[in-house]
Amino acid sequence: MAEQTKYVLDEKDLPTQWYNVIPDLPEPPPPPLHPGTREPVGPDDLAPLFPQALIAQEVTTDRYVDIPEEVREVYRLWRPSPLFRARRLEKALGTPARIYYKYEGVSPVGSHKPNTAVPQAFYNAAEGVTRLTTETGAGQWGSALAFACAQYGLECEVWQVRASYDQKPYRKLMMETFGATVHPSPSELTESGRAILKQHPDSTGSLGIAISEAVEQAAQDPDARYALGSVLNHVLLHQTVIGEEALKQFELAGDTPDVLVGCTGGGSNFGGLAFPFLREKLAGRMDPVIRAVEPAACPSLTRGRYAYDFGDTAGLTPLLKMHTLGHEFIPDPIHAGGLRYHGMSPLISHIYELGLIEAIAIGQQECFAAGVRFARSEGIIPAPEPTHALAACIQEALRCKETGEEKVILTALCGHAHLDLPAYGAYLAGDMVDDELSDAALEKSLATLP
Amino acid sequence: MAEQTKYVLDEKDLPTQWYNVIPDLPEPPPPPLHPGTREPVGPDDLAPLFPQALIAQEVTTDRYVDIPEEVREVYRLWRPSPLFRARRLEKALGTPARIYYKYEGVSPVGSHKPNTAVPQAFYNAAEGVTRLTTETGAGQWGSALAFACAQYGLECEVWQVRASYDQKPYRKLMMETFGATVHPSPSELTESGRAILKQHPDSTGSLGIAISEAVEQAAQDPDARYALGSVLNHVLLHQTVIGEEALKQFELAGDTPDVLVGCTGGGSNFGGLAFPFLREKLAGRMDPVIRAVEPAACPSLTRGRYAYDFGDTAGLTPLLKMHTLGHEFIPDPIHAGGLRYHGMSPLISHIYELGLIEAIAIGQQECFAAGVRFARSEGIIPAPEPTHALAACIQEALRCKETGEEKVILTALCGHAHLDLPAYGAYLAGDMVDDELSDAALEKSLATLP
Repeated sequence: MAEQTKYVLDEKDLPTQWYNVIPDLPEPPPPPLHPGTREPVGPDDLAPLFPQALIAQEVTTDRYVDIPEEVREVYRLWRPSPLFRARRLEKALGTPARIYYKYEGVSPVGSHKPNTAVPQAFYNAAEGVTRLTTETGAGQWGSALAFACAQYGLECEVWQVRASYDQKPYRKLMMETFGATVHPSPSELTESGRAILKQHPDSTGSLGIAISEAVEQAAQDPDARYALGSVLNHVLLHQTVIGEEALKQFELAGDTPDVLVGCTGGGSNFGGLAFPFLREKLAGRMDPVIRAVEPAACPSLTRGRYAYDFGDTAGLTPLLKMHTLGHEFIPDPIHAGGLRYHGMSPLISHIYELGLIEAIAIGQQECFAAGVRFARSEGIIPAPEPTHALAACIQEALRCKETGEEKVILTALCGHAHLDLPAYGAYLAGDMVDDELSDAALEKSLATLP
Repeated sequence: MAEQTKYVLDEKDLPTQWYNVIPDLPEPPPPPLHPGTREPVGPDDLAPLFPQALIAQEVTTDRYVDIPEEVREVYRLWRPSPLFRARRLEKALGTPARIYYKYEGVSPVGSHKPNTAVPQAFYNAAEGVTRLTTETGAGQWGSALAFACAQYGLECEVWQVRASYDQKPYRKLMMETFGATVHPSPSELTESGRAILKQHPDSTGSLGIAISEAVEQAAQDPDARYALGSVLNHVLLHQTVIGEEALKQFELAGDTPDVLVGCTGGGSNFGGLAFPFLREKLAGRMDPVIRAVEPAACPSLTRGRYAYDFGDTAGLTPLLKMHTLGHEFIPDPIHAGGLRYHGMSPLISHIYELGLIEAIAIGQQECFAAGVRFARSEGIIPAPEPTHALAACIQEALRCKETGEEKVILTALCGHAHLDLPAYGAYLAGDMVDDELSDAALEKSLATLP
């Protein structure tokens, strides 16, 4: 009998509930604060930005939240996603480790982002919202929301970080094909954008600035709301379909992970895979090491400060307790645009402080080397973001080769690189550099914490 | 119970044999001829270009050919591919038709091409070949062969039509990521290329020219062979895994197609899906209408002549009896680069002459309109090539809406458009034109038939 390569679930195995890790933690994460009063924000503070259903999910203490059938209908376009056993990579490495990867690149836009874009669009449409605004960096999130809005008849308006807007025209074209309107950020359309452009007419933008613009626009239009692609509790909640499916797939494989690795930008891909496994760990049913991997150029967990900070550059959002490099921090223009965020999901930060997960940082050249190695053995060219997880996976697999340990490694492969191929071109041409964040630059940025 | 969206097979349902339609036809197709003697070519004539195993498959009269386990191992990276029921498109069209699509975009390079690239690389490696040469237009085939060569340790050298090389840099980067070397064609590296450049220094190339260059290089190097991505019998043979899987999936769905539509360039995607259904039709087990869809700008089946012609521009290949627009024909630069070939698979041509399949031609604007409609309802942005099949599918579905017929339509969705998004950009910007092939241009081209 041939060795099985992938573990595919039937549509009837699509999860019916999202998992909320908060009630299973020894203590809840610190609440977001109003920047003026420094008091916890209430639902009313968030109402101009989010529909009631999502605000309720943001603060829920229920362990499980039902997935509406209208959302599952759209999930079925690509879910359940496959779990692969990376047999060809194992052979190429000569490792006794067993490597698995959960692949989210099968979604319409090529990443895990639609897992939350779809319910966000659904709940907004259900409450009569007609237009969603958002930011996007590399463009995965903007594409996902554009796709989701097309499913429920919503307008979608995206502020895309100028650097990506110019360098990655394919992402913009994908958003437009799904019917969205895309603006480069900073733009002249918002006060936040105009303020930045006045100071820096050539600004290439940042996620923090783009968030300010999208938030500002949503707050001014009673029929519009804002959608965020990572960081918040309800976003991570929606992403847990990844981990719930992976647990069922490990049952099919008759295996249990010893190490789980995922890349972290805002934290949603990592949390989506890791939280259901963390539940099993907290319940004593398995004991995987859970490891977040971040870029050396934007190391919020490993070098940031755990403090209250704004989620955006202009300071329009509530204060979030998180590992942050400072909300004015603008990371080097590394190719993993989805990991260039100054902060970390407050929930992931809290769990990291509790000692339930580890974190490491890796430079982008090692990551792209891992990406090429993976592409040539497994066929999938990984997006720049998950090459960080793959680099960590290969580190672990090579340690096993030395020690002879047959560890089981589970890797979050959150997307493909079809629209990021110029980054591979730069790597193959030897034009890529590793920009280490200097202590001085970090201290300067942290000095701006509110 | 929720309505099922996709029909997914287990790895154990991966076909173990390819299907050869020839012995089931009322008469065999006319043989390829040596251009000098006009006698049928023998295996020795083909030995400088292809390994023995593929030459044997080219002329086999066996109904089934076993798929080597080493090939199935690689197929498992993405196969079996899903069959989708396009429920959201049906709703958007308001049609009583039931629309299914077999999606090949889940492969590592995003199309059906690896189905034959993998066995071609395998058989070459097994016979000691160390280097494969090929041509590519839009780049799907070149990417597929680059991926396949990486699996078996072969060097891969690709001549890419200059127009695509310049306009679609992402495809070149994908080939290079898989380890291939890519040259623009016409190139200074071959006699064929130099001859063209002497006459037309600014030539943007054609598939016919690129084939000449790749063939010439392979013929000069005893360790090298040539690989072709469509047209030939063994290529269509390998693609029948698509149709065999689809038959099993229709059993799961409890349905039977009344109409099958697929786009035709060289014919391999179409034949791959259609031949197993044609077998069932010839055996009287079902009776689908089978319809080939080609671009109005390159209409070999609907307006070409059924005659012996060269497969390449320089006249290095055997003469093939096929529907051809003339081997010197250079089609308008439409966006479906994979359909810009002057001829048609001799096997498809023969089957068309036997009256077993229909053919229609559609202009690219209608095709892209269908592509956008499909993307916004089903999530997948189809490659320019299969938008032709989708346009034909929508024509049929709208006819059903008028007549009230509940026809079952099966569509070959052979790939996604991630690396072709600028074509959608041109369509959305209103910059796309439909260039109809004039009778005068066609007559002029046909006058060059050998």
